[in-house]
Amino acid sequence: MSTQPRLVEVRQKVLKHNDLLARNLRDRFRAAGVYVVSLVSSPGSGKTALLEKTLTLLQPKLRVAALVGDLATDNDALRLAQSGAPVRQIQTGTVCHLDAEMVAKALDGWQLQNLDVLFIENVGNLVCPSSYDLGENLRVVLMSVTEGEDKPLKYPTIFNTADLAIITKTDLAAAVEFDRDAALRNIESVRPGLNVIEVASKTNAGIDDWLDLLVSAASQHLG
Amino acid sequence: MSTQPRLVEVRQKVLKHNDLLARNLRDRFRAAGVYVVSLVSSPGSGKTALLEKTLTLLQPKLRVAALVGDLATDNDALRLAQSGAPVRQIQTGTVCHLDAEMVAKALDGWQLQNLDVLFIENVGNLVCPSSYDLGENLRVVLMSVTEGEDKPLKYPTIFNTADLAIITKTDLAAAVEFDRDAALRNIESVRPGLNVIEVASKTNAGIDDWLDLLVSAASQHLG
Repeated sequence: MSTQPRLVEVRQKVLKHNDLLARNLRDRFRAAGVYVVSLVSSPGSGKTALLEKTLTLLQPKLRVAALVGDLATDNDALRLAQSGAPVRQIQTGTVCHLDAEMVAKALDGWQLQNLDVLFIENVGNLVCPSSYDLGENLRVVLMSVTEGEDKPLKYPTIFNTADLAIITKTDLAAAVEFDRDAALRNIESVRPGLNVIEVASKTNAGIDDWLDLLVSAASQHLG
Repeated sequence: MSTQPRLVEVRQKVLKHNDLLARNLRDRFRAAGVYVVSLVSSPGSGKTALLEKTLTLLQPKLRVAALVGDLATDNDALRLAQSGAPVRQIQTGTVCHLDAEMVAKALDGWQLQNLDVLFIENVGNLVCPSSYDLGENLRVVLMSVTEGEDKPLKYPTIFNTADLAIITKTDLAAAVEFDRDAALRNIESVRPGLNVIEVASKTNAGIDDWLDLLVSAASQHLG
């Protein structure tokens, strides 16, 4: 009676289709020599605040741009465009994640070979984005100290598919009695060996660690 | 070429199937005289902290119980069970929301007529839960001051399907420079007239407003 198995089946086809498109994107990124970084997290974990700072501070060294996904509004694109970097908003409507097709469409007309690093900020969601390959080189999962230490245990898939975790809003750690050891232990338990960076976009704490990692990864990638 | 339209079509069937099951649940809740409240929000907005307090403080007056959804772990059920109220965990695996079938299954063996209020804590997600009717009488959307004032604009559907909004963690409002007027304006713009309560589970600020509303709504419902 349930239509759930049929949904799973069709969803698998969608994912397979997405994987093909993501492979095309990855080839295109490689050919253009652009390093692609995607950011995923809960709503309000500080993706846009970190990206704002990142775009501004990287620009003297690297040519950067960003795509930013939301169900509605172009608030984030307007905010990020103030950095001077090229930014485009993707509005997903009711869809809880970006997919490779949306990314490909949003890149229409952009000369990728003129970029060193492209950032893709996903819709705020700790579940849906995990299954959708966007052709990125580095997938970063953010969690803020205000969300609680247990998020890796509750949303293991997104941490499992990430290449780096960033703990954000560390300036609020004391106010929320954040248990740093527990958070690190929980990340380690769902994804052993995952690299973790801790930042506060507001105070710039840890931002250099993040920028150094990006510059090093991008330059290795660009060869 | 895209399989997206097929996914939309199958998804509509799933939603229709869910609506039928939710109607059955609603009839069952009504027959048993239990008032059902669901909570939705981003991960880490404080659903469990608020529910912990609510279960503890309501128990002298009302017979309460809770179902709590997460992709993985039964951390929240263990935490809430300390209140002494009956609590059951629903693990959704990779599914980003509860549905009526999961709720019906989780209620198996419970004597609903022995309850006054049943709480259903959804998976932390501001997108997926919005389309799934759980047969609840009151759907509450939470947003914490740490998430930013723009969440209603970015996730309008979940605010549109809610009957009440709760702004949580107000004890952190100053630390994160929360713009209360902007948040209230944004809620009002996507869902005019939506009732808003402001609480801090840590300090108990506003908790009485929430409990009074529940007691009054439940007693009206119980007639």
